[in-house]
Amino acid sequence: MSLLVTGSIGIDTVEAPWGKVEDALGGSSIYFAQAASFFSPVRLVGAVGEDFPPDFLSPLQRNSQIDLAGLEVRKGSKTFRWHGKYADDVNLRDTISVELNVLAEAAPPIPESFRDSEFVFLANTHPALQLGLLRQIRRPKFVVADSMDLWIDAQREALVELIGAVDGLVLNDSEARLLAGKKNVVQAGLEIASWVGANRKRARKGHGLLIVKKGEHGSLMFLAGNVTALPGFPAANVVDPTGAGDSFAGAMMGYLAAAGRVTPRGLRKAVAYGTVTASFTLEDFSLRRLFTLSRQEIDERLLAFGKMLRL
Amino acid sequence: MSLLVTGSIGIDTVEAPWGKVEDALGGSSIYFAQAASFFSPVRLVGAVGEDFPPDFLSPLQRNSQIDLAGLEVRKGSKTFRWHGKYADDVNLRDTISVELNVLAEAAPPIPESFRDSEFVFLANTHPALQLGLLRQIRRPKFVVADSMDLWIDAQREALVELIGAVDGLVLNDSEARLLAGKKNVVQAGLEIASWVGANRKRARKGHGLLIVKKGEHGSLMFLAGNVTALPGFPAANVVDPTGAGDSFAGAMMGYLAAAGRVTPRGLRKAVAYGTVTASFTLEDFSLRRLFTLSRQEIDERLLAFGKMLRL
Repeated sequence: MSLLVTGSIGIDTVEAPWGKVEDALGGSSIYFAQAASFFSPVRLVGAVGEDFPPDFLSPLQRNSQIDLAGLEVRKGSKTFRWHGKYADDVNLRDTISVELNVLAEAAPPIPESFRDSEFVFLANTHPALQLGLLRQIRRPKFVVADSMDLWIDAQREALVELIGAVDGLVLNDSEARLLAGKKNVVQAGLEIASWVGANRKRARKGHGLLIVKKGEHGSLMFLAGNVTALPGFPAANVVDPTGAGDSFAGAMMGYLAAAGRVTPRGLRKAVAYGTVTASFTLEDFSLRRLFTLSRQEIDERLLAFGKMLRL
Repeated sequence: MSLLVTGSIGIDTVEAPWGKVEDALGGSSIYFAQAASFFSPVRLVGAVGEDFPPDFLSPLQRNSQIDLAGLEVRKGSKTFRWHGKYADDVNLRDTISVELNVLAEAAPPIPESFRDSEFVFLANTHPALQLGLLRQIRRPKFVVADSMDLWIDAQREALVELIGAVDGLVLNDSEARLLAGKKNVVQAGLEIASWVGANRKRARKGHGLLIVKKGEHGSLMFLAGNVTALPGFPAANVVDPTGAGDSFAGAMMGYLAAAGRVTPRGLRKAVAYGTVTASFTLEDFSLRRLFTLSRQEIDERLLAFGKMLRL
């Protein structure tokens, strides 16, 4: 089934003690789309400014699974830029600078040809913007949103409204604890999952999928009042974790869209695919590893992952 | 096969925002033995002082699986005492006071009747003491040691000697990073695992088992140059994590001793049993939950754990 992602497209500079990339391709929708493309065709909606280097798009244009009809190059605007610096311990990251630029303007419209999308991922942005994007989709079958601490603090009401309007939510563990106001991440997750889809009018009201991402520690999945856990794929070689979360979501949603339906078992497998795909992303800076990756490599790692989880 | 544990026996006071126990039973060998007893008979070696309340032992004495012949009540000595305080976030713990007392004296000797033990767990203490205890065992088949940051800092040489003399080591993630001097826990684990058993003269030289415990995030297992991960069992109700690590080790070693042999598959299952048994320990203060626990409850949770890991 059709899969749509809305999110940022950025120019990233990433520093780490072992290397650096300057002005490289980044942004949530890019990581998502590239990861999803191993599983399913994916439609991308996002905006860049006039300063966006056209050759950044070449690998995406060459990828027949990615439809860039929703990519807007906005005249007079500048592309979103992010500059981050990882410490020796890659779990610690400082943001050196952020220029929202085009992200602070109106969201790009969803092209008419994309409005029949069935699987939708709303990457992190202002929750009111996410809702506005969602309302342009005619009959979405399965909608998942991402968010971040910024909106939990400053736009709580809009965020809770968004959560009530979607089928699933992806957060990291500190965000989940912050949003629920609970220190125990399982308690926090159970609480938030009960809000997911609460405002839907249809049968799947309160469907309640929540994925809590814990970086190297894997993830928790909350569904229908239950919680399950999967570990991270053990990674000895972490070069750049930027975009790992969006790659996780991309592979997860790509797998589900390809399956065409959402079951507890399918979700577990989707999360496992997300886990192993993300474990490739962090092996190199920017999207370098994702651009050389093959579905076969993903499947081989999934097999190893499944084997280590067999009791 | 026979299983021996050497370690502390303590009188614990534990505070948390939701409750408190004063002067309750604690100590690594106690948590270990009680957890191991669900799987295998277990021999306990440890010392207490004259102040040790005799009724603390009643639940252990009633447990036909636990052999207390190695429990020494030392005249003129006082029992080890620990007072800890958990924050709202149970991952944060302050030690309010520690009185080593009998733990600062000579270790209790291993009774002659225990010296034929085949599976041995050396709970955390000075690594030179651990080595001294190990040398009293005639032909151990599988020896695992625990340690802590204190010895990594102050007794590094003795600790590395101990690691070279055992078949397996259990550390938590911060200890593993500290010991290896590496921020990435997978890199740290691979390094340390290569030291495990390095001084053994027998065929299993460099057998190299290392379990890195990550609390709620589960564990990593390093074996023969490979690494695998298991998540924690998701726990919404964490009352007192004290002793969870020793319960983990107890169930793991109990399962292995009952199996009588150590294989990669068996180790994975042993770690899974350790994970779910520890998840019960933290549901109440001190050993309360472990004393009401049944093997059937453990097996039911293991089944649920296995199910959530099936991809």
